[in-house]
Amino acid sequence: MADQQILRELITNLLSKCGISNEHAHITADLLIAAELRDIPSHGLLRLADYARMILNGRINPNPNPRILHESPSTILYDGDNGLGPVVSVKAMELAIKKAGQAGTGWVAVQNSNHFGIAAYYSMMALEHDMIGISMTNANPLVAPTFSAEGLLGTNPIAIAVPAGEEPPLVADFATAAIARGKVDLLHKKGMSIAEGFLQDKEGQPATDPGILTKGGAILPLGSTRDYGSHKGYCLAASVDILSAVLSGANFGPFVPPSVAYLPLKDNLPGKGTGHFFGAMRIDAFRTSVSFKKDMDTWIRLFRGATPASGHARVIIPGEPEREAEARNKINGIRMQKKVLEQLQPLFTELGMEPYMDNSELY
Amino acid sequence: MADQQILRELITNLLSKCGISNEHAHITADLLIAAELRDIPSHGLLRLADYARMILNGRINPNPNPRILHESPSTILYDGDNGLGPVVSVKAMELAIKKAGQAGTGWVAVQNSNHFGIAAYYSMMALEHDMIGISMTNANPLVAPTFSAEGLLGTNPIAIAVPAGEEPPLVADFATAAIARGKVDLLHKKGMSIAEGFLQDKEGQPATDPGILTKGGAILPLGSTRDYGSHKGYCLAASVDILSAVLSGANFGPFVPPSVAYLPLKDNLPGKGTGHFFGAMRIDAFRTSVSFKKDMDTWIRLFRGATPASGHARVIIPGEPEREAEARNKINGIRMQKKVLEQLQPLFTELGMEPYMDNSELY
Repeated sequence: MADQQILRELITNLLSKCGISNEHAHITADLLIAAELRDIPSHGLLRLADYARMILNGRINPNPNPRILHESPSTILYDGDNGLGPVVSVKAMELAIKKAGQAGTGWVAVQNSNHFGIAAYYSMMALEHDMIGISMTNANPLVAPTFSAEGLLGTNPIAIAVPAGEEPPLVADFATAAIARGKVDLLHKKGMSIAEGFLQDKEGQPATDPGILTKGGAILPLGSTRDYGSHKGYCLAASVDILSAVLSGANFGPFVPPSVAYLPLKDNLPGKGTGHFFGAMRIDAFRTSVSFKKDMDTWIRLFRGATPASGHARVIIPGEPEREAEARNKINGIRMQKKVLEQLQPLFTELGMEPYMDNSELY
Repeated sequence: MADQQILRELITNLLSKCGISNEHAHITADLLIAAELRDIPSHGLLRLADYARMILNGRINPNPNPRILHESPSTILYDGDNGLGPVVSVKAMELAIKKAGQAGTGWVAVQNSNHFGIAAYYSMMALEHDMIGISMTNANPLVAPTFSAEGLLGTNPIAIAVPAGEEPPLVADFATAAIARGKVDLLHKKGMSIAEGFLQDKEGQPATDPGILTKGGAILPLGSTRDYGSHKGYCLAASVDILSAVLSGANFGPFVPPSVAYLPLKDNLPGKGTGHFFGAMRIDAFRTSVSFKKDMDTWIRLFRGATPASGHARVIIPGEPEREAEARNKINGIRMQKKVLEQLQPLFTELGMEPYMDNSELY
């Protein structure tokens, strides 16, 4: 198990060697470590090599100067200056929180940003201010709208964090697709097939080969097929795309730039970079924080205390598994994936850093 | 086919006889007719008998005086004074739009309201102001959280309306459950079974009998089973419940009052009535309306122009089918359900009104 402090220094060190300022390297390290602690390794150190490569090949600006392009009492249009997604997003969420402090709510639409990692991280920033936090982003196209043969939408996640009183906060963070890209890739790597209702081929027909994504196939929206409500997942993913990118002037739909270094940008992009949308709502702009939190405690206890379906141990409150993982991993350390460390070795060498190998159990 | 003006007068007349003011009767009639025109009869005249019965038996206040309980520059906490849902909701959405005019965005949490009908109606009110409109409501419990044997959430719909330029607006309006209650009831009435993945029995096991809802069963969240993402639908329905009811001080989760007259209220309710949440975001609080609308036109044309999956004619833009139905039904008239008219006859008699029968084709 890797110690989180050692990994944090490793990330900071690597990003510094790429020309990232100390402050920005720390913000990015915090975000990636948070993903590892919360058992979402697909958004943790796995992303570091691509972040670094995209800085080194000029796709991401190492010294961004994000700025406010327009504002109203409760809104901001924010230009990320093509910086690292976590850097731009932390600053944007801070602005949403500041606006909410003044106007009751704050809403920041972000253009010209990049892959932002775990959505929940930003929405959770609102919690300590007694605010509800909301965050979302669009992502490169993989998901087919209902009845479309083409993947035009990203997995476009939404996160909402809600403060409670004696209970821990409720934190929902979910992609608007039927399945995560990472899970499909894993099955592909293992040579396994997947049940119907997750993927389609390039004609839009049901597919069970997880390799179909490399052959013009696409992931289905949340809801799976039309019968089971894929049009609702499509509506949701479309709404995330529009709030994140059309409202901000970023690239939308099929134009969202890839978040990996080896894929090229499309020509004639309609907007700037990747788009995000952040919101903060001060609880006491509606009701007193005390009465709200009392009701949230009741809500959480009611749902946690519901009779579980036979064969299941308990009803889960959104965010509980991640919080439990975080508590566990903070003590036991972070379990690193072998392939992630292997991927980073050439970068360590190129940047003149000591090789890092975790001697403990890898997976 | 029934003429919409005749139906509108019928509704207004019936509600007036129940003691509803002219203004409020007109608001409610407009909402119910809009549902019929948009081919969502489950939220149209089908609701009128229950609206009337709930007024007559004292469950809904016929002369409400909705009022602002608290406000900040961009927010309002609104008490619906137990009025008809459409009346309270139209006034709440008008306030959200007014706040957005001043602060860039406006957000109204509503307590002490009742069944509000089609969510899209309210979000669409924002369109003529060059704003994005958002509306949502909680509803009486029918939907089981992932791993729960109990139905603790409503079908909790969300609607978002987005203005475009030359193209018609995009209007998404969807329940956060795997299937509509109305569809389940229809299969039950026909003695048909339903595929797995929509319903569960009182132990939380998969069920295919649509009658299961009357035997302690529940509807699954959007996403169907856990494998296909029901936890995401659960997160979404929970978020709607919290924004609509915990933020407003209305009844949440299993406490949401039934929207039919024959079911009693529970004792010791934690809040007041049903809860809604409305939002309006001024486009030009982010970017110029002209540039936004140009991009929305591009977005809509891109998605509409995508290659359809084989066997399908086209990719649908959210709101297109309802808009097309509205245009058609405005010309051809509204096709009434026989059972809806039958349900209303005793009310006509009780209230001393002429019986109304549509002589044209019923279904």
